[in-house]
Amino acid sequence: MRTIRPLADGSVEIIDQTRLPWSLERVRLAELEDAARAIAGMQVRGAPLIGVTAAYGLALALRDDPTDAALAAARVRLLATRPTAVNLAWALARTARVAQACPPAARADAAFREAGAIAEEDAAACRRIGEVGADLIAAIAAAKRGGPVQVLTHCNAGWLACVDWGTATAPIYVARERGVDVHVWVDETRPRNQGAALTAFELGQEGVAHTIVVDNAGGHLMQHGRVDLCLVGADRITRAGDAANKIGTYLKALAAKDNGVPFYVATPSSTIDWRLTDGVAEIPIEERDPAEVTHLAGRRIAAPGSPAANFGFDVTPARLITAVVTERGACAPDQLASLFPEEAAA
Amino acid sequence: MRTIRPLADGSVEIIDQTRLPWSLERVRLAELEDAARAIAGMQVRGAPLIGVTAAYGLALALRDDPTDAALAAARVRLLATRPTAVNLAWALARTARVAQACPPAARADAAFREAGAIAEEDAAACRRIGEVGADLIAAIAAAKRGGPVQVLTHCNAGWLACVDWGTATAPIYVARERGVDVHVWVDETRPRNQGAALTAFELGQEGVAHTIVVDNAGGHLMQHGRVDLCLVGADRITRAGDAANKIGTYLKALAAKDNGVPFYVATPSSTIDWRLTDGVAEIPIEERDPAEVTHLAGRRIAAPGSPAANFGFDVTPARLITAVVTERGACAPDQLASLFPEEAAA
Repeated sequence: MRTIRPLADGSVEIIDQTRLPWSLERVRLAELEDAARAIAGMQVRGAPLIGVTAAYGLALALRDDPTDAALAAARVRLLATRPTAVNLAWALARTARVAQACPPAARADAAFREAGAIAEEDAAACRRIGEVGADLIAAIAAAKRGGPVQVLTHCNAGWLACVDWGTATAPIYVARERGVDVHVWVDETRPRNQGAALTAFELGQEGVAHTIVVDNAGGHLMQHGRVDLCLVGADRITRAGDAANKIGTYLKALAAKDNGVPFYVATPSSTIDWRLTDGVAEIPIEERDPAEVTHLAGRRIAAPGSPAANFGFDVTPARLITAVVTERGACAPDQLASLFPEEAAA
Repeated sequence: MRTIRPLADGSVEIIDQTRLPWSLERVRLAELEDAARAIAGMQVRGAPLIGVTAAYGLALALRDDPTDAALAAARVRLLATRPTAVNLAWALARTARVAQACPPAARADAAFREAGAIAEEDAAACRRIGEVGADLIAAIAAAKRGGPVQVLTHCNAGWLACVDWGTATAPIYVARERGVDVHVWVDETRPRNQGAALTAFELGQEGVAHTIVVDNAGGHLMQHGRVDLCLVGADRITRAGDAANKIGTYLKALAAKDNGVPFYVATPSSTIDWRLTDGVAEIPIEERDPAEVTHLAGRRIAAPGSPAANFGFDVTPARLITAVVTERGACAPDQLASLFPEEAAA
């Protein structure tokens, strides 16, 4: 099951992730605005999937109007939907470049093909990340002597965040295929509960042993030796290895460091922003509607009248990251340029 | 308004904190089981208030049956309600000692008086903590030059956690009385949302500027210089200064250390467990019903079928604590014995 696919009628079908795990509903994106709203409203989420959806959004816009002006306007509209994930800008730039090289009449088709290519590359990259990460998990299992490998993850970087495989969960699935016993502590991931709703759902579907905990619990678990490794995704990572990911990731990285637990960031190279070095200073952090904090399912859960703030992401400094797991292998966070010399130099 | 008080008919009245901030409902505790259920079900919560409620519970039990056997059974029953807060054991031991020194017919009255004395001492200690802590806040304000002092707090250590004043919030109220401009970042405090529901409610009632954030947000705020100090309560603190408090406190202390933000634990001396040194190894951590994680207001918020675990507290090692704020002054966490030499030696 893929999270996004083009249909024969020229529209694009997604899974509405705001309805999971309660119901599996597919939604058709027929024009630019549908795609922009799906990203901003988090019907699709996860850096890789956001990138692919934006690329298809550009293709949908070009089908309506293939002019340079329409192309530029569509890029601006889509770019504004989520500021933190760099895949969004990357996929838009790549798709726009391909489209612009074509005569107007051929642009929409070219953009659709490019979006499809990005989706295929993402799926292949995630599968490869799974294999690289599974080696790391297997090494921990071998050193452990008995009991499952205990993984802690935050937010959802599973197949729902990608096209069909996942970044942070891919190593878990591959490790299991290889016979490694794994148990996953799933951070619920407030305010939108992607861990409790999506990651737990995915792991349950795959039959992976897991336990949901509140975001507050990871430090306690690590203090008591109940976590062997942390494994998270990323929405943007600098060339120096600072990683923006769902708010709260930094706190888990601090606890991992304090307790000698390896902390891995699994992410395709499309998430690396080669222009940036200092993640805390340079990566823009999305602020979302405070109602996501104060309300749940339409019902207010906070004291009446009290204001709230809703920061979507935080940045984990490279010094807290053991290794970045990419489609070309794992490396220390400050060695990304060695793995991707051609991109680092571009 | 006090959180607990004896009534003329011999029962004890509490505020049902599970109904706040939606409604202010008073509940009468007429016998031992009422008190035990009120503590276990968190109608009363917060280490100081739990201690006072347990003392009254013992008095209610003795009114029904003043024998040694009944006294011992009541202590066992009340002690089992919440394992982490040491005030519970402390208040029970103190009240039982006083009662046992009396002939059976006088025991209930003696226990009621002792519970009342514990309540008065708690109120006085919290007021004094407020004055000591306000000095620390005022010093930060003086060093800051402009803008409100930004405080981050976790869980509820306000007047609802105590008899009528609060531990971690008392310094905020006193600082404001002294004209210091304060803004409080309120961690919502999953899974039971005591921050979003109770602390925000208290601060709102007192007119203190505050903003609710998810528990994941504190690291991001500290990375960006938006927190001047952290101020939390404690449920049990060892003689070496390791502090058990609501799950997630340790993560905030790590972020404070990483960003040079002072981290204060405000707590009356009744919370110090002089028998213990190593908090992580020795303080028992309560595990509560997983449904508190998977459900909210009776509605399941986690993926169907996925299990959850619910650890109530974590331990912040003394090395992460700038100072402990007590009714006798503030000190480095490993200097508690100097402040309370008579208790440390007992």
